[in-house]
Amino acid sequence: MEKGQLLYEGKAKRLYATDEANVLWVTYKDSATAFNGEKKAEIAGKGTLNNRITSLLFEKLAQAGVPSHFIRQLSDQEQLVKQVEIVPIEVVVRNLSAGSLAKRLGIEEGRVFSEAIAEFYLKDDALGDPLITEDHIRLLDLATADEVETLRHNALKINDVLTGFFKEIGVKLVDFKVEFGRDEAGNILLADEISPDTCRLWDMETNAKLDKDVFRRDLGDLTTVYTDILTRLGGQLT
Amino acid sequence: MEKGQLLYEGKAKRLYATDEANVLWVTYKDSATAFNGEKKAEIAGKGTLNNRITSLLFEKLAQAGVPSHFIRQLSDQEQLVKQVEIVPIEVVVRNLSAGSLAKRLGIEEGRVFSEAIAEFYLKDDALGDPLITEDHIRLLDLATADEVETLRHNALKINDVLTGFFKEIGVKLVDFKVEFGRDEAGNILLADEISPDTCRLWDMETNAKLDKDVFRRDLGDLTTVYTDILTRLGGQLT
Ligand SMILES: Nc1ncnc2c1ncn2[C@@H]1O[C@H](COP(=O)(O)OP(=O)(O)O)[C@@H](O)[C@H]1O
Ligand SMILES: Nc1ncnc2c1ncn2[C@@H]1O[C@H](COP(=O)(O)OP(=O)(O)O)[C@@H](O)[C@H]1O
Ligand SMILES: [Mg+2]
Ligand SMILES: [Mg+2]
Repeated sequence: MEKGQLLYEGKAKRLYATDEANVLWVTYKDSATAFNGEKKAEIAGKGTLNNRITSLLFEKLAQAGVPSHFIRQLSDQEQLVKQVEIVPIEVVVRNLSAGSLAKRLGIEEGRVFSEAIAEFYLKDDALGDPLITEDHIRLLDLATADEVETLRHNALKINDVLTGFFKEIGVKLVDFKVEFGRDEAGNILLADEISPDTCRLWDMETNAKLDKDVFRRDLGDLTTVYTDILTRLGGQLT
Repeated sequence: MEKGQLLYEGKAKRLYATDEANVLWVTYKDSATAFNGEKKAEIAGKGTLNNRITSLLFEKLAQAGVPSHFIRQLSDQEQLVKQVEIVPIEVVVRNLSAGSLAKRLGIEEGRVFSEAIAEFYLKDDALGDPLITEDHIRLLDLATADEVETLRHNALKINDVLTGFFKEIGVKLVDFKVEFGRDEAGNILLADEISPDTCRLWDMETNAKLDKDVFRRDLGDLTTVYTDILTRLGGQLT
């Protein structure tokens, strides 16, 4: 497999073409960003941590029957994925109140929901990734009604799998964001990443934050908590 | 019927008890407010215009079979209504893009939707009336799933009735906000008001705004356009 030309550079990853059709070479950057890019830093090792954690979680999800873009990890900061047409909807699943939901609804952080909820946000940095409803999705023609059902269903399935998986290592999965895309055949695949950048992870005993909130809110050292997650997951830094 | 003590003073109306149980005496104020109370003015005649327009529209809706709190108009600025427990959800129905929707989704104003959409907003001035989903409604225990279905269904029915009604008088019903409440028996009744304060109304020919946007955006004289609507509806100022 050969790495081809740079197709897209995002805030956290670069996507390259390869010599195989519909296969992308992803490199995980060391950049940390928050508040829609307003807060930024370079953190050595972050790319490796997120690449390893994402690779590990996507393998677990594949075993649980969740179809995704993931092919394999290539190196510390690189992985191969199937190219998809990203559905411009960020699907957020929440088990406990935190972050923007707590703010929106005026409730305290940490309230446990009797059932997980799924939310849709328009993936549009210029608009600040606004909350949208299924009517808005139809209006903007972002996805068919069937696809929306698949997004919700798969996101909740991912939540079930990951909640159990994190529980085993003493971590509460508070909430997370996932992105999906369409492969050539029109199948909906989980894409992008699942890492402490895109999840809220709280220690089961102490409620210590083990995710990007540490960076967002200056609560500690990002590398330390991401390494803690990777280690608990059974992964290791070489 | 006797007017009793003041129970609540809102931005646009005052609610008084009466000597009959579960019947309220509503007075429509001359206050205009916008942007969550940031912009304010007193406009002589506004209370009368909104009271008359609301009374007229609620009568039309009753004829079309939409259950509401409306009992009867008492005077220029007063009406009698059934007391309800307000469901703290503002239901917005949209036929064309405008206002906060156009902003949220980054689309132009005036796009015609192939089907009307209904949105729910949390009625909470301190939180800025945020958009919420049915999951949020369940989470906050604001209404049962059946009630949510009734809110949506009734709001869309109101839209059908009012769209036809306004069409006859050369006016596009762009969008509107309604509030519902529960009567003593738990029935969902349309409550509050429907007026140029709570609707976007555009002249069919010229697209001239005939609603509170005139005040919000300093586009002309509120009394003139509200009077135009009342007159076209067949009502008159005494
Ligand atoms: N399998 C895939 N095929 C095509 N695009 C993808 C795939 N997986 C993720 N992407 C997209 O790659 C981009 C790069 O990721 P990232 O750096 O996180 O970007 P962003 O700054 O947009 O969040 C994102 O826009 C993401 O949606
Ligand atoms: N039938 C009713 N019974 C009880 N409350 C009502 C009824 N109709 C409207 N209300 C409430 O009366 C209040 C007064 O109206 P308004 O001046 O528009 O207040 P606000 O500033 O809260 O919008 C609103 O909170 C509205 O929800
Ligand atoms: Mg991203
Ligand atoms: Mg009001």
